[in-house]
Amino acid sequence: MNRTDAKFSFKTSAGNFFEDYRLGQVIRHAVPRTATEGDRALYAALYPSRFALYSSDAFAKASGLARGPLEDLIGFHIVFGKTVPDISLNAVANLGYAEGRFLAPVYPGDTLTSVSEVIGLKENSNGASGVVWVRTTGHDQTGAAVLSYVRWVMVRKRDHAAPAPETVIPKLAPAVAAADLVVPEGLDFSGYDFELAGAPHRWSDFAVGERIDHVDQVTIEEAEHMMATRLWQNTSKVHFDATQREDGRRLIYGGHVISLARALSFNGLANAQMIAAINAGAHANPCFAGTTVRAWSEVLDMAETANPGVGALRLRLVATTAGTEPFGLRDADGRYRKGVLLDLDYWAFIPK
Amino acid sequence: MNRTDAKFSFKTSAGNFFEDYRLGQVIRHAVPRTATEGDRALYAALYPSRFALYSSDAFAKASGLARGPLEDLIGFHIVFGKTVPDISLNAVANLGYAEGRFLAPVYPGDTLTSVSEVIGLKENSNGASGVVWVRTTGHDQTGAAVLSYVRWVMVRKRDHAAPAPETVIPKLAPAVAAADLVVPEGLDFSGYDFELAGAPHRWSDFAVGERIDHVDQVTIEEAEHMMATRLWQNTSKVHFDATQREDGRRLIYGGHVISLARALSFNGLANAQMIAAINAGAHANPCFAGTTVRAWSEVLDMAETANPGVGALRLRLVATTAGTEPFGLRDADGRYRKGVLLDLDYWAFIPK
Amino acid sequence: MNRTDAKFSFKTSAGNFFEDYRLGQVIRHAVPRTATEGDRALYAALYPSRFALYSSDAFAKASGLARGPLEDLIGFHIVFGKTVPDISLNAVANLGYAEGRFLAPVYPGDTLTSVSEVIGLKENSNGASGVVWVRTTGHDQTGAAVLSYVRWVMVRKRDHAAPAPETVIPKLAPAVAAADLVVPEGLDFSGYDFELAGAPHRWSDFAVGERIDHVDQVTIEEAEHMMATRLWQNTSKVHFDATQREDGRRLIYGGHVISLARALSFNGLANAQMIAAINAGAHANPCFAGTTVRAWSEVLDMAETANPGVGALRLRLVATTAGTEPFGLRDADGRYRKGVLLDLDYWAFIPK
Repeated sequence: MNRTDAKFSFKTSAGNFFEDYRLGQVIRHAVPRTATEGDRALYAALYPSRFALYSSDAFAKASGLARGPLEDLIGFHIVFGKTVPDISLNAVANLGYAEGRFLAPVYPGDTLTSVSEVIGLKENSNGASGVVWVRTTGHDQTGAAVLSYVRWVMVRKRDHAAPAPETVIPKLAPAVAAADLVVPEGLDFSGYDFELAGAPHRWSDFAVGERIDHVDQVTIEEAEHMMATRLWQNTSKVHFDATQREDGRRLIYGGHVISLARALSFNGLANAQMIAAINAGAHANPCFAGTTVRAWSEVLDMAETANPGVGALRLRLVATTAGTEPFGLRDADGRYRKGVLLDLDYWAFIPK
Repeated sequence: MNRTDAKFSFKTSAGNFFEDYRLGQVIRHAVPRTATEGDRALYAALYPSRFALYSSDAFAKASGLARGPLEDLIGFHIVFGKTVPDISLNAVANLGYAEGRFLAPVYPGDTLTSVSEVIGLKENSNGASGVVWVRTTGHDQTGAAVLSYVRWVMVRKRDHAAPAPETVIPKLAPAVAAADLVVPEGLDFSGYDFELAGAPHRWSDFAVGERIDHVDQVTIEEAEHMMATRLWQNTSKVHFDATQREDGRRLIYGGHVISLARALSFNGLANAQMIAAINAGAHANPCFAGTTVRAWSEVLDMAETANPGVGALRLRLVATTAGTEPFGLRDADGRYRKGVLLDLDYWAFIPK
Repeated sequence: MNRTDAKFSFKTSAGNFFEDYRLGQVIRHAVPRTATEGDRALYAALYPSRFALYSSDAFAKASGLARGPLEDLIGFHIVFGKTVPDISLNAVANLGYAEGRFLAPVYPGDTLTSVSEVIGLKENSNGASGVVWVRTTGHDQTGAAVLSYVRWVMVRKRDHAAPAPETVIPKLAPAVAAADLVVPEGLDFSGYDFELAGAPHRWSDFAVGERIDHVDQVTIEEAEHMMATRLWQNTSKVHFDATQREDGRRLIYGGHVISLARALSFNGLANAQMIAAINAGAHANPCFAGTTVRAWSEVLDMAETANPGVGALRLRLVATTAGTEPFGLRDADGRYRKGVLLDLDYWAFIPK
């Protein structure tokens, strides 16, 4: 209504539609945000995360960092949140992630901004929507890049008659190469305190193909996922507005499930301290309040780094509903099983 | 019971009743409170606020401030919260606000106290209650006033036989005069980054009479409004105690609706960065958990200031339930329409 | 499953069982945690606490402290939370507390760790479980002890055939002696501002046997107690996993009830600023979301200290469900009455 009735202001944003995007277009997203110790405390209240490097300033310093960084996913959520009003407000589906790299830790006091470049476009054959690929980079207040990732979303067209753009599908790496992982400057796990970190298992204790059922389960409430999603200034209506669905439930931000699953993975992967890369990710099924979430992991690859004592594990992290048999990802027809919520492929740094 | 049975201590406070107030009485409210970055993070988790000046320390500094201030309403809620045990614990209704002026930004680390002066009294004709007008001022740890406002509440009498005080109704300005707005020292919008702030509309793009439907909607949960209200140390029982109503719902603190509506107004008023004054306010209808809130605004007045690039808009901000037709405030009989929750008249600073 | 099927990793922790404990065993608990202003803000959002010494940095400084400490129970919850994975993950019941002493205030920035010593063991006659007594000490980043307490829990056996240990029941003091209370260095209440603190009652206004009904009531939501419990990194499944009970409710962490009752006691005990000791404590009945909690206190003892203006009250703090008659603790048969949730015996510092 606010766009059609001349009495009213047209100053609100309805977001972009598929035909608004152009290949090579660079979008500087609005509203920089300063991350603080308050974010750290809220993250602890919202997710059962216990990774020592982020829980303890003293542990971070003993690992060679200047002070205690914020959880890597805090930086990811903030940078992602800024893109929502421009990229996914009219999204039908969040289709995937690739080439995500964490380039520098985010510390309390850092102010983050996001910029995205449109790197791919493909109109759907129905002419009603299309897929947009963007490479998003988050910067801190000095202009240094702190993380970068590609995601692609299916976005509605405003006008079905608008002409289709030339189809360009970006060539994306199936995974970030181990050689491209950025180890934080100074990171040193040679004096790592395994007892204090909560588990004895070091890099060499893992093997490709190994699977871990993370055992613990957490039930999600509406208030929790809405507080989390707002904290990252994600404005997507489906997460907050009970009138968007007949049952009044709000779709849970996929990133909330990522953070929850990652936190649950502590029990089994306590030493997989830092997220180094996101190779791929799919929100396999929607998640709603009332769901009890469980997680399992699989070791996909292993690599060494040049930093003292620092190895890397490539892990599949899968979130499921409680009661879903672990370690099964897809049905016979290749589709994600009904109880699978998240399938995330990432690299983490772990002491050797 | 604790006040009538001699075995028990009388040390708890039951709050003041109408006959306890005297014209000119000055009440120094208890429990100073230090505001912190934790409050900023919780505010972000509780309200979808994205005003850049409060979200980003860097943006605040680029606007001439020493560092990132806390949202103006954080200061308001804290100062207000302190008055509840003395002013509104036995209130039947929170009737209105006037002459609210924000005198200085509140920064993390500031410790706020509140003091109120009784400036008006009027017993109701039923002899069971009366209206109390107070002018409340919030001070920081240096004794400097940070904000001041008048509010009036209907308060029960303890003893219906207590004599009525002389009726004194204070003469209140219908709105804070533009000349009385206090622009924060150093505030300079001459280098304002509209792209980073999230919208291109500057002061001169608005016109008196213009109306904006803010489009977005948020559903409120019990846990959210209780956490918010507690954060401001507001002790009013109706917000926390499910036994106060047969349906178990708790009345939502009116200030929660103010903050929610103000945050929703970002979509359309992203550059109305700072609240300068509260001219008037009415909580038109009670709000309960489960309500989905929407907001609209109307430009009531415009003014310039002496600070570089800083203009002021006088705005009506109206919160409604979802599905309420926007821009209609009152029924034919002059009463607020059923779906109207809040009618707030305020001044905001916006770049020219 | 993850412990019996050879395909799967055994890296997750299932916690300790009764037969895993040895008398004299020292357990250094995992995951140090830095406490921050974010914790202070969340504590304020989760509990209606208004004790001035913790609410206001300025008040703390005026009381002789270097800066504003965090609520004593924040330190307690963090130290306690670390012990859960090692002590109470397989607990059937949390049986009691004794000899709890707060040795130094915890300030934002402090990093806390926990260590426990097994000081008692007693297998139950059914051979299926036993009682473990531990003395837990919390340390800050300098290694200084900040608090110490004994608790005992009933823990399941993994293998009912495992031999019973020699029974050793530690001799515990019925209460911390007044002479053993540690007054924070520099604490000075000689210039205490009673008006600002919220009540006029000083040490000498109280008498042993005096009882206070704290009047206010708070209803607990699932999201609130889960956020609180996670904030302290307490991993006990029963607090988070709706599938653990048929009705989907999650058992509320006993410490949540302690903090809530302590906060409610402000109305009547506003000047009982600091918790000095926990003499005894029992979680008399389980608490679930939807419960409306009320509290009452009884003065058990009084003592003086060497610090200027600082006295001590020994208090019984009882949390009940709303509607439970106050001041009645046990039925005729000596059992806690049905509506009693918590029976806590503690010492607090209060101005003389």
